[in-house]
Amino acid sequence: MAGLVVTGAPRTPIHLLDALAKYGVATVHEAQGRNGLLASEITPVQSGTRVAGTAVTVTVAPGDNTTIAVAVEQCQEGDLLIVTPTAPCDMGYFGDLLATSLMAQGARGLVIDAGVRDVADLKAMGFPVWSRHISAEGTTKGNLGDVNVPISIAGQIVHPGDAVLADDDGVVVVPRRKVDAVLGAAKAREEKEELSRVRYLTGEIALDVNTMRPMLEAAGIRYLDYGTWEEERTS
Amino acid sequence: MAGLVVTGAPRTPIHLLDALAKYGVATVHEAQGRNGLLASEITPVQSGTRVAGTAVTVTVAPGDNTTIAVAVEQCQEGDLLIVTPTAPCDMGYFGDLLATSLMAQGARGLVIDAGVRDVADLKAMGFPVWSRHISAEGTTKGNLGDVNVPISIAGQIVHPGDAVLADDDGVVVVPRRKVDAVLGAAKAREEKEELSRVRYLTGEIALDVNTMRPMLEAAGIRYLDYGTWEEERTS
Amino acid sequence: MAGLVVTGAPRTPIHLLDALAKYGVATVHEAQGRNGLLASEITPVQSGTRVAGTAVTVTVAPGDNTTIAVAVEQCQEGDLLIVTPTAPCDMGYFGDLLATSLMAQGARGLVIDAGVRDVADLKAMGFPVWSRHISAEGTTKGNLGDVNVPISIAGQIVHPGDAVLADDDGVVVVPRRKVDAVLGAAKAREEKEELSRVRYLTGEIALDVNTMRPMLEAAGIRYLDYGTWEEERTS
Amino acid sequence: MAGLVVTGAPRTPIHLLDALAKYGVATVHEAQGRNGLLASEITPVQSGTRVAGTAVTVTVAPGDNTTIAVAVEQCQEGDLLIVTPTAPCDMGYFGDLLATSLMAQGARGLVIDAGVRDVADLKAMGFPVWSRHISAEGTTKGNLGDVNVPISIAGQIVHPGDAVLADDDGVVVVPRRKVDAVLGAAKAREEKEELSRVRYLTGEIALDVNTMRPMLEAAGIRYLDYGTWEEERTS
Amino acid sequence: MAGLVVTGAPRTPIHLLDALAKYGVATVHEAQGRNGLLASEITPVQSGTRVAGTAVTVTVAPGDNTTIAVAVEQCQEGDLLIVTPTAPCDMGYFGDLLATSLMAQGARGLVIDAGVRDVADLKAMGFPVWSRHISAEGTTKGNLGDVNVPISIAGQIVHPGDAVLADDDGVVVVPRRKVDAVLGAAKAREEKEELSRVRYLTGEIALDVNTMRPMLEAAGIRYLDYGTWEEERTS
Amino acid sequence: MAGLVVTGAPRTPIHLLDALAKYGVATVHEAQGRNGLLASEITPVQSGTRVAGTAVTVTVAPGDNTTIAVAVEQCQEGDLLIVTPTAPCDMGYFGDLLATSLMAQGARGLVIDAGVRDVADLKAMGFPVWSRHISAEGTTKGNLGDVNVPISIAGQIVHPGDAVLADDDGVVVVPRRKVDAVLGAAKAREEKEELSRVRYLTGEIALDVNTMRPMLEAAGIRYLDYGTWEEERTS
Repeated sequence: MAGLVVTGAPRTPIHLLDALAKYGVATVHEAQGRNGLLASEITPVQSGTRVAGTAVTVTVAPGDNTTIAVAVEQCQEGDLLIVTPTAPCDMGYFGDLLATSLMAQGARGLVIDAGVRDVADLKAMGFPVWSRHISAEGTTKGNLGDVNVPISIAGQIVHPGDAVLADDDGVVVVPRRKVDAVLGAAKAREEKEELSRVRYLTGEIALDVNTMRPMLEAAGIRYLDYGTWEEERTS
Repeated sequence: MAGLVVTGAPRTPIHLLDALAKYGVATVHEAQGRNGLLASEITPVQSGTRVAGTAVTVTVAPGDNTTIAVAVEQCQEGDLLIVTPTAPCDMGYFGDLLATSLMAQGARGLVIDAGVRDVADLKAMGFPVWSRHISAEGTTKGNLGDVNVPISIAGQIVHPGDAVLADDDGVVVVPRRKVDAVLGAAKAREEKEELSRVRYLTGEIALDVNTMRPMLEAAGIRYLDYGTWEEERTS
Repeated sequence: MAGLVVTGAPRTPIHLLDALAKYGVATVHEAQGRNGLLASEITPVQSGTRVAGTAVTVTVAPGDNTTIAVAVEQCQEGDLLIVTPTAPCDMGYFGDLLATSLMAQGARGLVIDAGVRDVADLKAMGFPVWSRHISAEGTTKGNLGDVNVPISIAGQIVHPGDAVLADDDGVVVVPRRKVDAVLGAAKAREEKEELSRVRYLTGEIALDVNTMRPMLEAAGIRYLDYGTWEEERTS
Repeated sequence: MAGLVVTGAPRTPIHLLDALAKYGVATVHEAQGRNGLLASEITPVQSGTRVAGTAVTVTVAPGDNTTIAVAVEQCQEGDLLIVTPTAPCDMGYFGDLLATSLMAQGARGLVIDAGVRDVADLKAMGFPVWSRHISAEGTTKGNLGDVNVPISIAGQIVHPGDAVLADDDGVVVVPRRKVDAVLGAAKAREEKEELSRVRYLTGEIALDVNTMRPMLEAAGIRYLDYGTWEEERTS
Repeated sequence: MAGLVVTGAPRTPIHLLDALAKYGVATVHEAQGRNGLLASEITPVQSGTRVAGTAVTVTVAPGDNTTIAVAVEQCQEGDLLIVTPTAPCDMGYFGDLLATSLMAQGARGLVIDAGVRDVADLKAMGFPVWSRHISAEGTTKGNLGDVNVPISIAGQIVHPGDAVLADDDGVVVVPRRKVDAVLGAAKAREEKEELSRVRYLTGEIALDVNTMRPMLEAAGIRYLDYGTWEEERTS
Repeated sequence: MAGLVVTGAPRTPIHLLDALAKYGVATVHEAQGRNGLLASEITPVQSGTRVAGTAVTVTVAPGDNTTIAVAVEQCQEGDLLIVTPTAPCDMGYFGDLLATSLMAQGARGLVIDAGVRDVADLKAMGFPVWSRHISAEGTTKGNLGDVNVPISIAGQIVHPGDAVLADDDGVVVVPRRKVDAVLGAAKAREEKEELSRVRYLTGEIALDVNTMRPMLEAAGIRYLDYGTWEEERTS
């Protein structure tokens, strides 16, 4: 299938992306039933940035970034490039020039299950990147992958057009048609957490805030004084 | 043994914790005979923070953070939560809400051989965390581990009540009854290092500052001029 | 061969080192034909620093940093210590005292395929370090490695006297006799990239800037409308 | 979506599975354009076994194998269970009892991106397994994943009904609708390889068998006598 | 504490060890409430062997096997050497000579969280070993660890005198005073499993054998026909 | 330098290779002063095989095995192919066809810091391989590395013409000019070990066979009765 570029893929509307970016990755992951989180080995190059974008999916041949250049042409305002090599590779597929070009197209960032380079420049430019590796090792050109077909990346399936949210906690994908519902659930969850936070600040604890004591009883919790315990284990 | 909560465990006195926090982890590790260091995979979420606290030990079931909530109730001023799952797990067992609650109880931080989430918030709150992973993936509730029994974490045994010191270099545990002795050794070591530092600054080197030359002779050190060496190896 | 110290090894001239430090590791790696990059597991302790120095090569016994102390005596203005253990080891071979001493000798930094400690101090001192691990675990003394013989470190051969360049992207070694040629190629590459950058900023893309479309045709690229593609795959 | 069991999923016909099992994973991977190979960390528990089956896909909660039990009921003659946890987990989700049950249903084996146990029994029973880990650690019950929805496992998307082929080289997935075409390509490839093998046996080499010399010339290959090379590099 | 050798440690009686060796590691792990399993990275060098012995615990300095030689003197009939280095190390601490000596003392095997060598000889001798690495790299002598103090190895605490059971599934530690109780639970578990096995062989499945359907209902399981599911997801 | 093929490289004489193959990798590694061992991640595909050969060194581009085909032409009786990619890659660079061709040229095996495939065939053919990965993923053709230049592989420098010895314990390189000396040291070491083995078989232990007790005294060994120790630690 290598060499296939699907054009005109659907997008998640910009206003939904912007709404999504108000919530953290952890919140959104919970809000959609604990689904869609990329493996924790995909980490932010920068610190303190959160971004939501429409997935433009890309597969690249090992050690070859040709298809990223192809994908740039398919990008538009609000897109996020989601790139995975067809075999694990730590090389630096992406650097400041491609970032410059993507920014010029209106793309919002990059998620890549491989390496990137020029990270000092990327940070200076404010182009957000989540990657598995940092490596100065450039790639060759000439072998093609695909653009905008469903991909398997870091344990998740990403379809072109899906919303992807990334921050310091990681990267989560939200299927395009579920963004609306997830936004609602995220809002509800955040409001509930806000109420809990106030109670925690005043010294209440989760056992009471979340009414966990009956569950603990059922699970057989047993409180034992330190002295008694010491005696029990040495006798 | 799951579900056991030992109450009223002994504590390392606050003034000893505060005294310990004046030294780096590397110094304290040396001062107690190169013992007690947790595996280097446990790294700080933040940068530039050092904290010492009394270990409140916690084991958690894989993918279930119920026991952390149970442990919060056992925490008091000066405590440090030391958490390990019973099987390796990179999920995010701990986030900003539990941190809020721990801070309200007077706890000083968290060491966890698993994942945490909401790291941007944790940093903003100033709640220090050392973990193996960062992951937005929340856990379920309902399975119990234990609180305040001896645990094996990252290659070390930690007993409830032990002092734990953590900074940018890692995490070290000091048995409760040895804190006094270790403090003395750490002070002596630091003073000796201070004297060495002055000598290094003026250009003296370790071979002389530490009188290492006889040891090198004994070990068979051999100095060879580059030209001679080149000849030797190509002939 | 353990215990051999080669003295009077050749150096890369300081002005060439300084010229090299004007380019990034990624650029220099490309400029010398994609050679010489150390494995991406060797990462900077600090952020935003670039340094070029002459390699003083060191092998150390596992868990023993004696040979680093020996090597300090061989260091001079412009040198960079390149250290590798003879078996993988995550211990902290190097801390602030050795850094103080190296700075006093005029050395510019450290690259080590093992662990370092006192990282908060190292950052505060401005002594740049690239390492595989951070660990507070100090080493013993008494077992010797070699100084200034060719070493294999992180997938590369480094000879004493080679130039080594390190920044946020990683570490690259340039053979001493090739520094001049590499500098020329790096300059040419950077100028070419500068021209490309201007074109990217105005919205041109790599497919045109680098005239890649014929290559894509040859590789069999195929553009397919999303609707058509959907039909194809479900029929 | 957790808790969803899709019933009556399509199957790859048994005769196609059996035809597929005549070829090695390496051959089939090439035959479908170098696609579909699971990550090399998924390795065979046994040695010398090859099996092809229809994918029954399963996601499991971390540390919980309930959904495997659910999936057994959906299995029939010729099926292969393809299991992935929603977070990385090395626990032993599967042992000899589940294997006994699967064999009784006619299933041909298991591919799991997690741990298995009772491996001595599994080998004695002749039930083939490919897994990421071996671990005696049993799982709990009570949390659900899904059965027979598309999953992302070890870098590949597997749909229910796809053909999966596994041997000592690894595991490859062939989309259900492509099995016929892949079989043709595999046959052609194997015949071509057979012809090459005969030539290799008589001492011909790949440069001639595959007519590679023009490509080498184009890529700039340069032959240099050892003596000349030695001179060049030391001058 | 380095250099401490505790003599005359208690032993698990031989007849209990032999009784334990009738059960698999997976069964015993379950029988003691899913506790005591060493990390799955500790794997058998050989295949098809199961052994139970009394733990003689050993810590070794990184790259130094002196303390193993010390421990041999403390071994007697029925013992199993449990060795962990104080920092991670892949070197070959143990080979055929030490194995010869241990066998002569009546020891039953070795569990080591590091490397071993001479593995072809070890297998030929029938001396069972579980290790993290295989490496020909011999260690030096001169630095001491401890013998027969409690150790933290691969995520578990092992006390001298504990029973340790190891087979192809891994290694589990049973506290000395609990062996009797664990044997009872293991027997009960195995009998129950035997009854289940018979039912599985006749085609019954776990959902019925273990009466899991009500639990599935409670967890919200949902069965959906493939056709309906296809419609739902594309609409 | 890519694309360079050095012809007519020197060889280690066949009779020295055959003499070397009488000793294990562990013995030879010790005999040359604990040098030359490749990283323990390079493991044998087969079991129970030992081979010594002359290194024909090869670097390959990531995901491209063209240069292995080039190297076959440079192989002769007694050679061992030593292959490393210029960036880490787990793909299967080598399978049964290349093995057939190498055997026809008289080559004795392959050591590769990457992946191989067709492992069932390789074992059946009796062609010995040591690799880092097993993967069915074939490589492309067209990018060149070098043949018979010095390479850095798995932590060691290998020069063309060096002797390489491999068995179940790993892989060790012996510089061509040192083979004679190493053989002498290996013989001496093996004879000494043979004497020790006899003593171990009769129940003597290393502390006496190797006269280690004075060293233990010097290192501060301390024997403590279990009862006394128990009292000490709890008081």
